[in-house]
Amino acid sequence: MRALAFDGTLQCVDVPMPQPAPGEALIRVLTAGVCNTDLEICAGYMGFRGVLGHEFVGIVETSPNPHLHGKRVVGEINCACHNCHYCELEMPRHCLNRSVLGIKGRDGAFAEYVTLPEENLHLVPGSIRDDVAVFAEPTAAAFRITEQLNVAEQDRVVVLGDGKLGQLAAQVLWLRTKNVVCIGKHTWKLELLSALHIKTAHANDPVEGGADIVVEATGSPEGLARALELVRPEGTIVLKTTVRDPAPLNLAGCVVDEVRILGSRCGPFRPALEALAMGNV
Amino acid sequence: MRALAFDGTLQCVDVPMPQPAPGEALIRVLTAGVCNTDLEICAGYMGFRGVLGHEFVGIVETSPNPHLHGKRVVGEINCACHNCHYCELEMPRHCLNRSVLGIKGRDGAFAEYVTLPEENLHLVPGSIRDDVAVFAEPTAAAFRITEQLNVAEQDRVVVLGDGKLGQLAAQVLWLRTKNVVCIGKHTWKLELLSALHIKTAHANDPVEGGADIVVEATGSPEGLARALELVRPEGTIVLKTTVRDPAPLNLAGCVVDEVRILGSRCGPFRPALEALAMGNV
Repeated sequence: MRALAFDGTLQCVDVPMPQPAPGEALIRVLTAGVCNTDLEICAGYMGFRGVLGHEFVGIVETSPNPHLHGKRVVGEINCACHNCHYCELEMPRHCLNRSVLGIKGRDGAFAEYVTLPEENLHLVPGSIRDDVAVFAEPTAAAFRITEQLNVAEQDRVVVLGDGKLGQLAAQVLWLRTKNVVCIGKHTWKLELLSALHIKTAHANDPVEGGADIVVEATGSPEGLARALELVRPEGTIVLKTTVRDPAPLNLAGCVVDEVRILGSRCGPFRPALEALAMGNV
Repeated sequence: MRALAFDGTLQCVDVPMPQPAPGEALIRVLTAGVCNTDLEICAGYMGFRGVLGHEFVGIVETSPNPHLHGKRVVGEINCACHNCHYCELEMPRHCLNRSVLGIKGRDGAFAEYVTLPEENLHLVPGSIRDDVAVFAEPTAAAFRITEQLNVAEQDRVVVLGDGKLGQLAAQVLWLRTKNVVCIGKHTWKLELLSALHIKTAHANDPVEGGADIVVEATGSPEGLARALELVRPEGTIVLKTTVRDPAPLNLAGCVVDEVRILGSRCGPFRPALEALAMGNV
């Protein structure tokens, strides 16, 4: 089959069909999405070698669960060992021995076929188009914020970054508080949010500080310094950006203002699929 | 009077006696302590010019509160305006217009006399010696951690740094969980904790990772990277270090492991004085 693989350089290659391990399903990929993490991997992040891609929707070809045959699915990307300390603590996304689709130890979805444990799959409601369903994984990552944080109706939220994750975070948080502003550099991207009645600002515009919550989804190492300027004392910064290289940073402001910085990665697929089905995101 | 002041260089100078403003007490300093922040200020941190020093014990000479006359006191270092947004929210330590003793807009305690608002003062119980009472301010900063975090009996805690704040944090957290280890570079400092039956390790020793809580009190910009190595997924790093200069840092590990980084500054004097009086710290 054809696949887009990274091996120091990115190339389209012919590779053997993946063989599902026990408990795994074989999925024919319909559509796959590009994440900033894919670009960082191509810059050396995670030292990954193999087929890229972790956002997809596909059709189950074979599965240990016969009810899944022929069904349209999306898939959680962390594959747990079920034996380690964190699996025992029911934190499978933090499994010490995990593989991660297209990121760590497991070929990804930029290919004709992909394999995943059957337990990672979620059926896609018929009302969700392929080009919407492919957003399930990043939408779940946006919903992760609402698992980690109690976002209140009166909270003032700033989302830094108008890329895919920033847009999804702004939409998901807007379901909790209307006091959301997304700051970005791309007028056409910000207009997508304006059309949904979500406030936006250009990165060069002055923005009022003192936000209760700032989501840092710029994909740039400079984003955190800006987040520290905008968050209120004892406020929360949700950190979504992962980059390959260290960047100069001074966290004295975090200490002085007693800011909470919350790393945030993958999230729950169920509310993500519900929101996509309802058209809420 | 004589004072130790920073004006680009550190020098012992003769300065006029400080004049207490309305609501302020005049205090004769008995003993003052040196904090790492004083050293950072001498390296340019905060851009402060004036008399240094924010850890002290002294005798009240004049005060709007006659009950304080002649009494031995320690003092909270943040002086609030009582008018701003954060003062209204009862967050006076984060007052937008605050002065901070020997750190920001207010001469400090490395002098014969110092002034502070009467409301900032705490009486020192007679059982606490001067050379113990002078630790009230940093001990309060250590107790701040227990205000911000629910430290449970079964939590495993690592304290990075065997300086004053690290030592106090280890002792305060040891009151909550016996599973505390302090990592430092100075054998004689670590032995002070060993004598209190608190576990210690040298910075070069291997230390088990996966800690629930890591307190970063190294005073060095490299401490946070070490804290990220030692904390468990979804664990908490309490950040105490403030330094003048940015340092290279990669927070990808914070995102991937969904770590919570909690800036932590000044704390409550009451439990600090109680612990010092009881001999618990």
